[in-house]
Amino acid sequence: MSLLDTVLVWIEKNQSRWLHDVKSFLSIPSISAQPEHAKDVLAAAEWAHDYLRGIGMTVETIPTAKHPCVLATTPEGMCPPGSPHILIYGHYDVQPPEPLELWTTPPFTPTVRGKELFARGACDDKGQVHCHLAALMAWKEINQGFPCRITVLLEGEEEIGSPNLMTVVNARKEQLKDAQVLLISDTNVFADGEPSITYGLRGLIGVEFALHGAKTDLHSGMYGGTVANPAHALCEMVAKLHDAKGRVTVPGFYEGVLALTEEEREMWKKLPHEDGKYAGELGVKELYGEGGYSTLERKWARPTLEVNGLTSGYQGAGSKTVLPNRASVKITCRLVPNQDANKIGDALVAYLESIVPAGVRFELVARSTGSPPAITPIDSPAMAGASAAMEMAFGKKPSFQREGGSIPVVAWFKQTLNIDSILLGFGLPDDRIHAPNEKIDLRYYYGGIKTCAAAYELIAEKLK
Amino acid sequence: MSLLDTVLVWIEKNQSRWLHDVKSFLSIPSISAQPEHAKDVLAAAEWAHDYLRGIGMTVETIPTAKHPCVLATTPEGMCPPGSPHILIYGHYDVQPPEPLELWTTPPFTPTVRGKELFARGACDDKGQVHCHLAALMAWKEINQGFPCRITVLLEGEEEIGSPNLMTVVNARKEQLKDAQVLLISDTNVFADGEPSITYGLRGLIGVEFALHGAKTDLHSGMYGGTVANPAHALCEMVAKLHDAKGRVTVPGFYEGVLALTEEEREMWKKLPHEDGKYAGELGVKELYGEGGYSTLERKWARPTLEVNGLTSGYQGAGSKTVLPNRASVKITCRLVPNQDANKIGDALVAYLESIVPAGVRFELVARSTGSPPAITPIDSPAMAGASAAMEMAFGKKPSFQREGGSIPVVAWFKQTLNIDSILLGFGLPDDRIHAPNEKIDLRYYYGGIKTCAAAYELIAEKLK
Repeated sequence: MSLLDTVLVWIEKNQSRWLHDVKSFLSIPSISAQPEHAKDVLAAAEWAHDYLRGIGMTVETIPTAKHPCVLATTPEGMCPPGSPHILIYGHYDVQPPEPLELWTTPPFTPTVRGKELFARGACDDKGQVHCHLAALMAWKEINQGFPCRITVLLEGEEEIGSPNLMTVVNARKEQLKDAQVLLISDTNVFADGEPSITYGLRGLIGVEFALHGAKTDLHSGMYGGTVANPAHALCEMVAKLHDAKGRVTVPGFYEGVLALTEEEREMWKKLPHEDGKYAGELGVKELYGEGGYSTLERKWARPTLEVNGLTSGYQGAGSKTVLPNRASVKITCRLVPNQDANKIGDALVAYLESIVPAGVRFELVARSTGSPPAITPIDSPAMAGASAAMEMAFGKKPSFQREGGSIPVVAWFKQTLNIDSILLGFGLPDDRIHAPNEKIDLRYYYGGIKTCAAAYELIAEKLK
Repeated sequence: MSLLDTVLVWIEKNQSRWLHDVKSFLSIPSISAQPEHAKDVLAAAEWAHDYLRGIGMTVETIPTAKHPCVLATTPEGMCPPGSPHILIYGHYDVQPPEPLELWTTPPFTPTVRGKELFARGACDDKGQVHCHLAALMAWKEINQGFPCRITVLLEGEEEIGSPNLMTVVNARKEQLKDAQVLLISDTNVFADGEPSITYGLRGLIGVEFALHGAKTDLHSGMYGGTVANPAHALCEMVAKLHDAKGRVTVPGFYEGVLALTEEEREMWKKLPHEDGKYAGELGVKELYGEGGYSTLERKWARPTLEVNGLTSGYQGAGSKTVLPNRASVKITCRLVPNQDANKIGDALVAYLESIVPAGVRFELVARSTGSPPAITPIDSPAMAGASAAMEMAFGKKPSFQREGGSIPVVAWFKQTLNIDSILLGFGLPDDRIHAPNEKIDLRYYYGGIKTCAAAYELIAEKLK
């Protein structure tokens, strides 16, 4: 039996210990958005700090302007000299649990029902962070050391937009700069029975604009027909943002879009996705989107432009015969590799300005700084190691998926440390993250611990 | 000196009496919308009842489900036998005065400043109702009788939509059915120095519809690009409601629209309207509307379709990356003679249903019953009498204008009694009706009394 096999068997035997430990971690209400929970966020940082020290790592809690980061690294004597350096990122803060009345058991009283563990943070992200902590613990217990250099960076502000994370990364650049791969466990597998690794994320850019008409709202009888109605003008503009085939009409929008490879299209066709079932779950009769692409292709590899909100005039009950003097819209675009978020933002604003109808004044209300898309080559040595680790833990070769959402830290780490991320997630699509009754499936939690333990060795081997 | 001249001179001499009387009427806070003022509404009805009885008329206060109507008629001995029958309609209720802090003097403490009388109801409509009451008083004082049969019908619910007026009219149809013309003094002259009679009003029809997408709002990253966005679909539909020339595209929308006569176009060209000044007052750089028509033509004689409100998705501060599952819009159309409000409503709904984009579900949320447009021939004998009366009072031949707004009672009286209305208004465009510091210009108030006094005789002569 290899050393890794021994580690994996030991993980399997100690399930009740992992469950005990993760419940303890999950019972701390580390809600980063709520000031009254600041001491709980700190308590969760201390919990992780102590746990990592117990594993034998060198740990620091690094204060920030708000909630601290916990930074742990393998001491010199506990990993092979000159071995590759793996960075692990995760977060120990959680979303607010409200509305509390919709929880079957309280959000910070972790409870097992059947094969699922219910708690706020069970999946996003304390449960998945603990997969790494348990895997490190297993290596320490069996081997008194780790298969390679490992640094763990946990933040307490992910759910509030990670305002201080990169300040810490920049301050510790010297310590992090030779990391060769970033492991993040904060995503899902494609489906139950379909272990998978996420290798691409969409980026994001947002604008909000308003159109202004007269000085005030006007009586639609006394003035209707004589001055422009900003609500009409807004609708005309929004209607011009897509063509009849569902493509975005902003000039240059598709510039740089990485074409799907035949390999990717074939790979995704094999995933257990059915349009009919997906439509049924969403409650729509038919799906919709850019022509020429499958549903998964549209959501993972094609950029989109979506209106997030429309506002104009009277919105209460009944009728009010007003000619509004303002209409506004919030828009976000999901971007794909290798679109440039800034360029797309510029192109969108320029296009909007060019299609403002007569009689109204355009105002750019807000423009987000944008979050770049990200992609990691699926044929890299580290990816091969991660894939082999997941196969070892779940007994099935994982598929490679992308995700339609954005995880800004992936692009930030790429920019700051020039490091690719491997998104080794153990959630299931129905884990209800950010919602009441968040849970993690214990099969995936225990499988996650094994995957992490194997990944450290198998990735290190490939990176040597 | 003719009898009418004597009456007019006597009106001129008794200005302080009229001012005293109208102040007394205006000091009663007859706010029909506010239940705590129900007794004040009743007090104003009693005030009018007593005043009309003092003139020698036969008066009844007719209870309704809410606020009463006051119905007064000339007794047999006080008008020439077999003389024409003129019906006068007005309302003694007023809009709420709030916000009180914006009034220079309290709304129910009628106050003269310069040549203006400030009070809630000064223009809309107690002040203008009192023009008729004073004119009738003058005839009674000078002549112990009236130049023709006159019925005065005052309601106390105009500002809450006149829910019970037509019940009273129908109940008293026998008494009203031989009235040959309806005088309403509840509008403005075109401008100071431009006395005018309003002979046309636009009608109104409204719809509210919603488009539905998925069962719930969706994460724009996880689902964007795969299902239809109702906000996009809504904008596409709204953008299709007008063509590039500003014409409404609903099939059949312009059916029945009465073409402007050359006489009307010439008449309106002469009115003191300047597009530049009008645009400046509204705070817009340029005016906008259906091609081929002047500003006054567009607002008085052309139908419009206006969005009154748009709603979809997230409307708070900042950004929320949501793919909304619902978008809705409130629309009202202003209609002109001889469009049929019901037909237009049907055509609009049918057109909307025909242009619903793929992937969303259409729901008609509300449809108003509609208010028909109205027009009174300007070459009728009664109109000639009214015009001569106004010229006699103001020393200038009045112009004939229409109004862009809707006064539903005009169409209701036409439907119920087959009677045309003459809108003999004495307000000025800046009288701030429904707003703080409502006022009436005393030159127009006294001129209004004279106009009314002259109108009874001159209209009756023409109708004989």
